[in-house]
Amino acid sequence: MTDSLALAYARKLIACESITPATGAVFDALEEMLTPLGFAVDRFLSGEDDQNPAHGAPVENLFAIRKSSGRHFAFAGHLDVVPPGDGWGSDPFVPEIRGDLLHGRGAVDMKGSIAAFVAALHSIPEDAGTISLIITGDEEGPAIYGTRALIDHMHARQSVPDFCLVGEPTSVHRLGDMMKIGRRGSVNMWISVAGTQGHVAYPHLADNPIPRLIKILAEIEAIHLDDGTDWFQPSNIEITDMQVGNKATNVIPAKAEARLSIRFNDLQQGDALVERLRTLIEAGGGTLTAMISGEAFLTPPGELSAAISEAVEAVTGIQPEASTTGGTSDARFLTRVCPVVEFGLCNATMHKLDEAVALADLEALTEIYRRVALKILG
Amino acid sequence: MTDSLALAYARKLIACESITPATGAVFDALEEMLTPLGFAVDRFLSGEDDQNPAHGAPVENLFAIRKSSGRHFAFAGHLDVVPPGDGWGSDPFVPEIRGDLLHGRGAVDMKGSIAAFVAALHSIPEDAGTISLIITGDEEGPAIYGTRALIDHMHARQSVPDFCLVGEPTSVHRLGDMMKIGRRGSVNMWISVAGTQGHVAYPHLADNPIPRLIKILAEIEAIHLDDGTDWFQPSNIEITDMQVGNKATNVIPAKAEARLSIRFNDLQQGDALVERLRTLIEAGGGTLTAMISGEAFLTPPGELSAAISEAVEAVTGIQPEASTTGGTSDARFLTRVCPVVEFGLCNATMHKLDEAVALADLEALTEIYRRVALKILG
Ligand SMILES: [Zn+2]
Ligand SMILES: [Zn+2]
Repeated sequence: MTDSLALAYARKLIACESITPATGAVFDALEEMLTPLGFAVDRFLSGEDDQNPAHGAPVENLFAIRKSSGRHFAFAGHLDVVPPGDGWGSDPFVPEIRGDLLHGRGAVDMKGSIAAFVAALHSIPEDAGTISLIITGDEEGPAIYGTRALIDHMHARQSVPDFCLVGEPTSVHRLGDMMKIGRRGSVNMWISVAGTQGHVAYPHLADNPIPRLIKILAEIEAIHLDDGTDWFQPSNIEITDMQVGNKATNVIPAKAEARLSIRFNDLQQGDALVERLRTLIEAGGGTLTAMISGEAFLTPPGELSAAISEAVEAVTGIQPEASTTGGTSDARFLTRVCPVVEFGLCNATMHKLDEAVALADLEALTEIYRRVALKILG
Repeated sequence: MTDSLALAYARKLIACESITPATGAVFDALEEMLTPLGFAVDRFLSGEDDQNPAHGAPVENLFAIRKSSGRHFAFAGHLDVVPPGDGWGSDPFVPEIRGDLLHGRGAVDMKGSIAAFVAALHSIPEDAGTISLIITGDEEGPAIYGTRALIDHMHARQSVPDFCLVGEPTSVHRLGDMMKIGRRGSVNMWISVAGTQGHVAYPHLADNPIPRLIKILAEIEAIHLDDGTDWFQPSNIEITDMQVGNKATNVIPAKAEARLSIRFNDLQQGDALVERLRTLIEAGGGTLTAMISGEAFLTPPGELSAAISEAVEAVTGIQPEASTTGGTSDARFLTRVCPVVEFGLCNATMHKLDEAVALADLEALTEIYRRVALKILG
């Protein structure tokens, strides 16, 4: 039995080791798949001048487009993978079928998904409309020079899509049970309260910062941000760390710190949350440092989510839930360009040992992507 | 100019390095001073069978007694010292006079004080009454096998004193400004709250222990233990540490911990405090581990403190404040035996670099100790 198109493509992509940030061979492999299908492929490095190792530069990006009249439908994704870790049942970069599963790092997140989309292209006529692929080598890393650079590139080429499907593994228990129409925003905050060190026997000569921090944190715990929306769960504040680091039982410490993580829906804005917390924290005698990872975004249910829902139901018999849960993804950048929905394989093994995709899911996803593209292109 | 007796004795004791727990040479030196003065000297090791390194065993102890009819007056102290640390102006175990000061580890805490008492003995007639010295080699360490073992030894020898003067450095700004008639009790408590680790994006699947700990700590902060007494300041709870140790900004931690230090007066008892806090903490979902270092104790102003006050005023012209402030000392054990008051040198340099005693203070303290002993012995 010969491999299906999707399986053959998935094997090729997995066989190219591409721990984030990815460059080179794995992009060569994808380019070789797209050129025969009539795509013009642009590849470029971004962040070459950035020497900061935390920025994960340089990053390779690929923008492929097959132009036609009518609508422009884009597929977005990434070729980088997270490090495999130790303890795999087979080499994570040698694709191996065991039973009904294809094993390898990236099988579901998201080389399998890219393979399915490229396979689907074989059944989409060139005159159906414009199709593009927006593929970065840094989604799993800092993501500074990845999809953001691709968006700049599309703007410069005046090739901005009308709709974008992101192929992240959104399915949970079985293929098709969930798509993502948005994500919550995310901000981390660091609180520090200063005091004056001293001996517990002479508390009047010291100034313990811990009671002030406790009061601040108790006030933060009492905050009710919102009740959620039709599409979002309520915004949530978690205190994720407290730190004094005072080993001496008889010493009143000079500093107390804590850290918050807020995941928020589109009733909130990162800046406004930071200012609200800053006011509370400074009134309580503390200082705040904040880092907004992303704002909340939503593509309200519409044409794209309807097309996905219809295709999923036709192929799998189930209707996908339109969710906004989970961590962030590159959809947060693409949402500024056009309507974006994420849909892909089952995420049970993503970022884990023995990451694997069901062979049947590769075929079903190919058919779903084909139907979505044709439906959107009309 | 020849050294005074007190200075000569202080030099000899400082010259014997005796970082806690002390044994050997420094006790030989003291024994050689006491035997010519008619004292029977018992020296013994305690805790020889204890293999636990945290218990600081074995410890050398010395009990010296010169019996006579009438009252029994005891002087208690320790020959061990804390480690000198780096940065001294001269070798910490080579006594050196610079200006009006004798430098060396133990100069004020409390080899200088022991030297002054031994010097005073030269002017106390043998028939004035019974005099003893209760000297341990472990006051600065765990103090498990030190003064407690000496008390057992005195009971076994039926040589329990009627009054005990502890020679700790209680003076603050100048010799004579403070004596201690009691000390607060001390208990350390460790609070732990368990939860379930998870991802901040899915708080409903996790159980963050931090809010529970904050609530517990806020309740503890609201506790008012007492308003103090005529002799004690109010009991005080300090939260001295908080610890989660969660490095990942997107992880809800599985455990949160905090530590308390309570210094309490004789309106409180260690056990009762532990049970009160345990009830509060367990109701809040936490667990408690407690270690009581000592109960509060008090020798209400009486004959011994009056004798010290009178002697101090005669020699220095000032009246000592009768205080119960500060950390704990071996007086906490001796208070079970007889009335105990602590009085000694200025503590400004104790446990610090370049510990030093004023030469004039050594002489003045010798005269104060002589007057106190004679007054008590009648
Ligand atoms: Zn991914
Ligand atoms: Zn001492």
